[in-house]
Amino acid sequence: MTEPNQPRGPIGGEGARSLTADAIARLVGGTVRGDGSAAASGIGPLDRASSTDLSFLASARYADAVASSRASIILVSPELTDVPGPAAARVVVAKPHEALLSLIPHFYPSTIPAATGIHPSAVIGRGAVLGTGVSIGAHSVIGDAAVLGDGIVIEANAVVGAGATIGAGSVLWPGVVIYPRVEIGKRVFIHAGARIGSDGFGYVFADGMHRKIPHIGGCIIEDDVEIGANTTIDRGSIDDTVIGAGTKIDNLVHIGHNVRIGRLCLVMAQVGISGSARIADGVILAGQAGIGGHTSIGKGARIAGQAGVFGDVPAGESWSGYPARPHRESLRATAALFKLSGIMKRLERMLDKTS
Amino acid sequence: MTEPNQPRGPIGGEGARSLTADAIARLVGGTVRGDGSAAASGIGPLDRASSTDLSFLASARYADAVASSRASIILVSPELTDVPGPAAARVVVAKPHEALLSLIPHFYPSTIPAATGIHPSAVIGRGAVLGTGVSIGAHSVIGDAAVLGDGIVIEANAVVGAGATIGAGSVLWPGVVIYPRVEIGKRVFIHAGARIGSDGFGYVFADGMHRKIPHIGGCIIEDDVEIGANTTIDRGSIDDTVIGAGTKIDNLVHIGHNVRIGRLCLVMAQVGISGSARIADGVILAGQAGIGGHTSIGKGARIAGQAGVFGDVPAGESWSGYPARPHRESLRATAALFKLSGIMKRLERMLDKTS
Amino acid sequence: MTEPNQPRGPIGGEGARSLTADAIARLVGGTVRGDGSAAASGIGPLDRASSTDLSFLASARYADAVASSRASIILVSPELTDVPGPAAARVVVAKPHEALLSLIPHFYPSTIPAATGIHPSAVIGRGAVLGTGVSIGAHSVIGDAAVLGDGIVIEANAVVGAGATIGAGSVLWPGVVIYPRVEIGKRVFIHAGARIGSDGFGYVFADGMHRKIPHIGGCIIEDDVEIGANTTIDRGSIDDTVIGAGTKIDNLVHIGHNVRIGRLCLVMAQVGISGSARIADGVILAGQAGIGGHTSIGKGARIAGQAGVFGDVPAGESWSGYPARPHRESLRATAALFKLSGIMKRLERMLDKTS
Repeated sequence: MTEPNQPRGPIGGEGARSLTADAIARLVGGTVRGDGSAAASGIGPLDRASSTDLSFLASARYADAVASSRASIILVSPELTDVPGPAAARVVVAKPHEALLSLIPHFYPSTIPAATGIHPSAVIGRGAVLGTGVSIGAHSVIGDAAVLGDGIVIEANAVVGAGATIGAGSVLWPGVVIYPRVEIGKRVFIHAGARIGSDGFGYVFADGMHRKIPHIGGCIIEDDVEIGANTTIDRGSIDDTVIGAGTKIDNLVHIGHNVRIGRLCLVMAQVGISGSARIADGVILAGQAGIGGHTSIGKGARIAGQAGVFGDVPAGESWSGYPARPHRESLRATAALFKLSGIMKRLERMLDKTS
Repeated sequence: MTEPNQPRGPIGGEGARSLTADAIARLVGGTVRGDGSAAASGIGPLDRASSTDLSFLASARYADAVASSRASIILVSPELTDVPGPAAARVVVAKPHEALLSLIPHFYPSTIPAATGIHPSAVIGRGAVLGTGVSIGAHSVIGDAAVLGDGIVIEANAVVGAGATIGAGSVLWPGVVIYPRVEIGKRVFIHAGARIGSDGFGYVFADGMHRKIPHIGGCIIEDDVEIGANTTIDRGSIDDTVIGAGTKIDNLVHIGHNVRIGRLCLVMAQVGISGSARIADGVILAGQAGIGGHTSIGKGARIAGQAGVFGDVPAGESWSGYPARPHRESLRATAALFKLSGIMKRLERMLDKTS
Repeated sequence: MTEPNQPRGPIGGEGARSLTADAIARLVGGTVRGDGSAAASGIGPLDRASSTDLSFLASARYADAVASSRASIILVSPELTDVPGPAAARVVVAKPHEALLSLIPHFYPSTIPAATGIHPSAVIGRGAVLGTGVSIGAHSVIGDAAVLGDGIVIEANAVVGAGATIGAGSVLWPGVVIYPRVEIGKRVFIHAGARIGSDGFGYVFADGMHRKIPHIGGCIIEDDVEIGANTTIDRGSIDDTVIGAGTKIDNLVHIGHNVRIGRLCLVMAQVGISGSARIADGVILAGQAGIGGHTSIGKGARIAGQAGVFGDVPAGESWSGYPARPHRESLRATAALFKLSGIMKRLERMLDKTS
């Protein structure tokens, strides 16, 4: 369908902005090799860049791609300055990746949804309070007595429950559901289909059936959190579920009832955090890791992908494996296991001899 | 944003109901220590309770929190009666947690969505049959010939497919999608974004491509089932997918085509059940467990978190590990593995000597 | 609620079509045993078929079910021709399962949503281009300058972002969200709640916080892809995310930014693919497998359920385990481990003696 090497225009059809290699070098504090008047109007990876693109080389691993790249300008790190290739200009800079990120706003408009006002099909509940500049997309529903801060953008088909509060500058992509009374801070970004404040999984077995525990607790998302697509965060049963300021959560993550996550954590895709777990500040949970109920993960700890954590993890440690252990122990155990399968027959023979 | 210790009013802004320690003791069959006229108008955990809250202590693990708790009344178990702390009154009761649950309705209104009638923006298909007291939220869509029982509450932006049936007293939170012809029983609670009756993952490779198998089977959710947010349950290919009465399913669970789950099971978050698996009554599947295709899990079996089940599990057994084994075997294997990594060098030296 | 053995009428209430055993044998190239005039008007599995159903027996494992099946006609493989049972007729055919699939269209209408035109509540953006015969369901929203090919069916409550393109013959089930500028090919089927083109999980830690990396890359879904319910596919950061033609993706799958998946792959439920991974043509990833960031999976490789892939996998190989290894090595290691736990005590005694 799409030609992979067609020119990559700026997003949204707005007028392209072009920068010369000289201008780029000034912006990122780098030096030009080649034609300083060479220009770029977009950004692309080496193998997909067009002749009007800026690209970058930050690792020797991808050096071969420079020779066949059509990019007009390439950001390179000092030790890779002389990798052969046809680009009209190179800009030598200590950290090409960070330099590139700083250049994105010069080429592309923001990817955060813009304010568009309140669509006539949106339904606003009784007593809802809307700040200035709030945008609400088509077919979205705002519950009774909800409070929306200034400049919030809510896209199409989202639902904000009764009594929920959302702080200024937050963004809800399409189809997000916020349950009643959830409290969301400022500048919180919530991607499509995330569900915030659903009832937790709590039952008491009585009279021959699992009786549902009413979930009267809160669900508090602090400032500057980002929540990925289709992620689910349950409200508390009696306690609250709390996500600390600046924590970033990826897609399809499950966070159970009464969980408290600290500040500045990174929770990657498909992680599951069971009820009442405590995650301290600055923790990193890699993809598909599972955190058991009522466990504590200490400050700055790192949990590897798919790790299964069934007990507490001390601050600052890296754990992996299933069941999870300190990463070095897991590595040693895995290494021993694969050695074992090579020596098993000899071991059994030896046991037969000696016993 | 939110002060953690601000008073926790009742949900929905309705008038607070207050109970004295004496009244609470009567309701739960307990005895009062301290001031029987002390009152509470809400419930909170020890560390977040306000001075108008009832709290509870059920485990010695949290006894320290009693000393600093602001709760006016604390439910305590007999052996923890004398834990030091400033609460005006204690109510001593055998099972504080169960007592607390029974008190929730005295303090808080129901958290189940209330009937609000049929919103004018809802679209109702031709031939759809609605029972008495059915509520349908804004922008929801009911397909042709769907049948909705008495008292059903369907919240905003939900979609019920053509010919689907839903029994009396069921609740669909916002954004739920029920595919055509799905059959849902009575008092079934379905949380935001769950997808019920989607096509299963079935293809036949022919003529150089994966050809889709039409999914003509049914999807039957029996009475008193609860389904978590963003969970997906596929319809059958030719057979039906069936979820037995009283089974509870958490968030982000995947249930493949033709799966049959028995009654009163608990299926925790992010579990995946592959096509045509058979799960008997009363089974517990803990978070992130995976059940292989065409396997059988016997009555009352328990599968640990993240376990990978590739074969049949007999009734009543507890299995864990990857690949899953009876839990004791898995524990022994894990213990042996970590011992092994400590003795590997000595083992190898010994083998070198003897061979 | 539902009687399991009630007659299974055709989907959608349309008039039943009936076929005799003789007619079925002609259609599938088989031979009739029994009453060639016996008729069926639907299809059901042996244990749930009614007396007007066609059923099938493809494996000796299910032979016992023939004796108690009420099916009027059974497709059987040659070696199972004489399994005892009361069916009026059998049709003997080399591959009963494939024969059955070819018969589905004779009994049932298509399960793909039919064209219904553009619902008046749908919101169509400025400059959107709609091909002929496009259907858009109630409360769906099409962004500015989106381009929809001929015959596309978009069901209720879906959202297509500004500038997105969708090829002819594609289907979006209810509640799908396509982010802006995503490019979707022809005959792509996207199930309820899938999110295509959301921002990837990318941050740079600077000034004491995780700063969001703008995601200006594309998200390209080629022809004949199918995407399961509630699956999430992130757009690229600077590069594009690409799903190759004919690849099929199950429910609740996560595909990170900049991932490229080749043609004709099968990605089963709850798989997670981390950012910048490269999956070649014809790869099979079984349920809950996790693929690490920047890894490469070679052409035709197969990854087992729940496997954790942290490095590159060569073409054509089968890998399993956590961490994943070639399947034979994983099997040997697992076998050795369970042997080890049986001989651990003797091993330790022996070490004590010899050291």
